[in-house]
Amino acid sequence: DGTLWVEYPMYTQVLFAFDRIKTLAPQHPEWKTTQPFKALLAGDMKTVGASGMKGVTEIVMASHAGMTGDEFEQEVTKWLATARHPKLGCLYKECIYQPQLELLAYLRANEFKTFIVSGGGIQFMRPMTMKAYGIPPWQVVGSSIVSEFKTKDGKSDIIRMPKIDFIDDKAGKPVGIYGHIGVRPILAFGNADADMQMIEYTRAGEGRRLGLFVHHTDADREYAYDRKSHVGVLDKALDQAKANDWIIVDMKKDWRSVFPD
Amino acid sequence: DGTLWVEYPMYTQVLFAFDRIKTLAPQHPEWKTTQPFKALLAGDMKTVGASGMKGVTEIVMASHAGMTGDEFEQEVTKWLATARHPKLGCLYKECIYQPQLELLAYLRANEFKTFIVSGGGIQFMRPMTMKAYGIPPWQVVGSSIVSEFKTKDGKSDIIRMPKIDFIDDKAGKPVGIYGHIGVRPILAFGNADADMQMIEYTRAGEGRRLGLFVHHTDADREYAYDRKSHVGVLDKALDQAKANDWIIVDMKKDWRSVFPD
Repeated sequence: DGTLWVEYPMYTQVLFAFDRIKTLAPQHPEWKTTQPFKALLAGDMKTVGASGMKGVTEIVMASHAGMTGDEFEQEVTKWLATARHPKLGCLYKECIYQPQLELLAYLRANEFKTFIVSGGGIQFMRPMTMKAYGIPPWQVVGSSIVSEFKTKDGKSDIIRMPKIDFIDDKAGKPVGIYGHIGVRPILAFGNADADMQMIEYTRAGEGRRLGLFVHHTDADREYAYDRKSHVGVLDKALDQAKANDWIIVDMKKDWRSVFPD
Repeated sequence: DGTLWVEYPMYTQVLFAFDRIKTLAPQHPEWKTTQPFKALLAGDMKTVGASGMKGVTEIVMASHAGMTGDEFEQEVTKWLATARHPKLGCLYKECIYQPQLELLAYLRANEFKTFIVSGGGIQFMRPMTMKAYGIPPWQVVGSSIVSEFKTKDGKSDIIRMPKIDFIDDKAGKPVGIYGHIGVRPILAFGNADADMQMIEYTRAGEGRRLGLFVHHTDADREYAYDRKSHVGVLDKALDQAKANDWIIVDMKKDWRSVFPD
């Protein structure tokens, strides 16, 4: 989020969660009187925000768990087929950065393997990464909730459970890379302080390694945000970039185009 | 283990752990008086076995944790370079099944992607899977201990911690597939009851899906073991194969060669 697709003003997955709560509300009359669901259903985003990590986690669990893996994939695919960014006008799954598509293609043309390592949900991204970026599901690393293989009515399947399994962010990113990929990256591209550990891990390998950050500086074509943002905070990384030889890519100055035509 | 390489009379990784305890013993004088290390160092495998899961876990943690990811890879690579199977004479990393190599090559020639989904340690297998099977590290799924990205003396790296993270066996195999691969298999090949859930998950997908088990029936060329074995128990799967349309591959009858020339 923010490196390959738009994350402003809110992470796409959070919007999916909000929409899904609204869809599920008729089956959950108790939400009418329980926070943060009550506020969310009333459109009172200030109260939702004030519910903090605890509230957001409840919303994520209620919207992401309690179904099979296949069912979740279908829900995500269905939502992504029509959900559109209010300012930019693109479908969220098409609010992707053209220069990054070119970089991915360039790397693959030069025998690199390309992976996504995101704080976003691994199973939320997988339905769209192949078509959008040419990256297959098994080359996507992300956060996850616990899943279990369970038998119900004589049928067994993967069931998504309402419990955090792994947060692929900050120091979790190198851990996710080690666990899922098993090879230290040659090049890592991020856009936030939460990517610093991934880039540090990348750069610490032997030989030449490259670490880059997208700096969102383009209020006209996309958004301008960094140090004080409520999403994708880029603050310490800006201060430490020079000393660490990290490359800051200035969206406004460095990107001829932002989105595909 | 037992599907792609030899697991009899003992899983290769356990032998690695035993050897590593012996190597590390001079730095751990306390092991001379602490079980199961004392028994292991004295060659008293009966007492080691009697220490059960608790004892084996202690041995695995002492031999697999407390180092960086790169250091563990180096230790495994070094050990695999010389460790040899006492009866078969092959290096463990070359005690691999020729018909399975042919199957993997055949599948890849027909646009399948091939993955390893093993109860063995994910980071123990990765140093050898590309050369042995043509399967890169990121297409290997396995059991793991917790790893953390930590800073020490100004250097940050992945540190392997003495705590179980995930057991990729039995009902864990579909979970590992869902988490690491994100696509339900078309074909799954196992050799033990611990593979039944993986094959059940595979077969439950739409369209044509194939589930197979290697049955170790060849005491001359390899080993004959199944229902009562201390490794790779194949018992319920034999009984349920016919009703479930699982294919049992009889090593003695069905495999013209067992190992590469």
